[in-house]
Amino acid sequence: MVANPLELIKTEISRIEETLRNLRISQHPFINQVSEYVLFSGGKRVRPLLCVLSAKTLNSEVSDFLYETSLLFEYLHVATLLHDDVVDSAEFRRGRKAARNLWGNQATILVGDYLYAKALRMASFLKNPEIMDVITETTLLMSEGEVLQLLHLDDTELTEEEYYEVIYRKTAVLMACACKVGALIASEDFEFSQNLYNFGLNLGMAFQVIDDLLDYTSSETGKDQGKDFLEGKVTLPVILALKNAENNHKEEILRLLKTKETKKKDFQRMYELLNQYKAFENTLEKGKEFVNKAKEQLKELPSSPFKEALNFLADYLLTRKK
Amino acid sequence: MVANPLELIKTEISRIEETLRNLRISQHPFINQVSEYVLFSGGKRVRPLLCVLSAKTLNSEVSDFLYETSLLFEYLHVATLLHDDVVDSAEFRRGRKAARNLWGNQATILVGDYLYAKALRMASFLKNPEIMDVITETTLLMSEGEVLQLLHLDDTELTEEEYYEVIYRKTAVLMACACKVGALIASEDFEFSQNLYNFGLNLGMAFQVIDDLLDYTSSETGKDQGKDFLEGKVTLPVILALKNAENNHKEEILRLLKTKETKKKDFQRMYELLNQYKAFENTLEKGKEFVNKAKEQLKELPSSPFKEALNFLADYLLTRKK
Repeated sequence: MVANPLELIKTEISRIEETLRNLRISQHPFINQVSEYVLFSGGKRVRPLLCVLSAKTLNSEVSDFLYETSLLFEYLHVATLLHDDVVDSAEFRRGRKAARNLWGNQATILVGDYLYAKALRMASFLKNPEIMDVITETTLLMSEGEVLQLLHLDDTELTEEEYYEVIYRKTAVLMACACKVGALIASEDFEFSQNLYNFGLNLGMAFQVIDDLLDYTSSETGKDQGKDFLEGKVTLPVILALKNAENNHKEEILRLLKTKETKKKDFQRMYELLNQYKAFENTLEKGKEFVNKAKEQLKELPSSPFKEALNFLADYLLTRKK
Repeated sequence: MVANPLELIKTEISRIEETLRNLRISQHPFINQVSEYVLFSGGKRVRPLLCVLSAKTLNSEVSDFLYETSLLFEYLHVATLLHDDVVDSAEFRRGRKAARNLWGNQATILVGDYLYAKALRMASFLKNPEIMDVITETTLLMSEGEVLQLLHLDDTELTEEEYYEVIYRKTAVLMACACKVGALIASEDFEFSQNLYNFGLNLGMAFQVIDDLLDYTSSETGKDQGKDFLEGKVTLPVILALKNAENNHKEEILRLLKTKETKKKDFQRMYELLNQYKAFENTLEKGKEFVNKAKEQLKELPSSPFKEALNFLADYLLTRKK
């Protein structure tokens, strides 16, 4: 048994990657081509990993079919990315051309639909109503959230509560679902599956909070830095800065955010203002709170190296730099 | 008990309509607004009707929750229409502005996703793995078919067999699925559910064949007449005409079909050529064959007014004028 959490995580990710490479998405080369372009563009496999670690925390002898099943969460995730890119007219995704830039919006919409259908198809193979229950609840929350986000695109009055509602639907519920499905595959213990759901939910909240923080503070100079700022998106660092800022600075922050063609100096000024009002420290603090809530949920679960890996993942979130 | 099949069908459609009007799609007014615009635009509720009649053929005492469940097939259908309209850049749908013309492509894609998720959510409430199996198999076939259709858009060499593959995925599998789910809700008889699946499959094939015939022969002068011709789509009447046509007429048919901005006289000439090579008679004949295969499947089922209504529906297909 591997004891070091980081080694264990690396081993599990390798198995997930291997399963992903070997699984045929469709009989049709074109669908495979588009799907593989997005699937192999540097995703970290967080969702399948959560599914696998949750399952093994409850039952280390769980069937290897788990790895295949865990991929449905990667498919679901990628399906939403494809539709998001069409909806946002995105040019890039993870530093590469967005799929819609290579194959057009039409194919991107339809391959997104296909991956979504494929994920649900994989879930149906488990023949477990509780699993279908949590998956369909999750995709419904997510798709409703996508519409609501579209309606509130330019809403600079977004409150902290509303922001949490957005990231709950956008990120947290899918991670929670991946954990719960792993649990349900491995064990019939309802309480434990609920603990793992809540773990995933809080981890997902922390994940998105830190993601939104890194959009400003990331040391990487890739194309994606300052993406939210460029798009005029109100995220937690902005909300927390606005709470503390003096009126003239409030106006400046909102003006900078609404500027259509922002320059490098606009981003620098925004960074300066957010920093001045401790937005980065406070955002990190909120991320920590969610991480602590997540780890709290693990306490009641049986001890195991897999549980330690989940704990490790939660802590790791707060230290990642990109 | 109502004995007249047409009266019985009208009664069932009224109950379906009433359930549809009373069911809240979402808590969010915008999602309801867009969804209701498409849901109440003159759809004939064929898929929910097939689900209800199939269920009642096997068990006339089936729970009234059936009506609500049957609507998931209308939601699935409408979800595909919304995405189709975006993919085809459609201006109109059923004689009205397409949803994308009123709310834009972004909202149309996302509300389509929502309706799809909602349909799967409704299916999950039945907690029946066999039902999820046929539904996810169906949506996977359909979404794969959509991608293949996009790739073969300009394929004037489409064979009769390939055409059947397209309409099988586009129309037949969803009708088959609606019938089978109705059967599974009402009874545990596996054979009967398979009969009803095959009934729906052949009925769906006939439905689309006749639809493609009416695109040329409909007496209605609505905007939709000649739509396939306008879009340069190869459908069964064209395929059957090309089989019989002399070489110079073959070329003329293909040239007319490929003409970018067709005029009324182009449509008239196309009509003349298809008529000359008995394309309309032969297409109707193919439709009849599918209807007969569909009705064949009903023979083994227990007699009931609902079974008569299914038989009636099948015959009615061949006589409809729009």
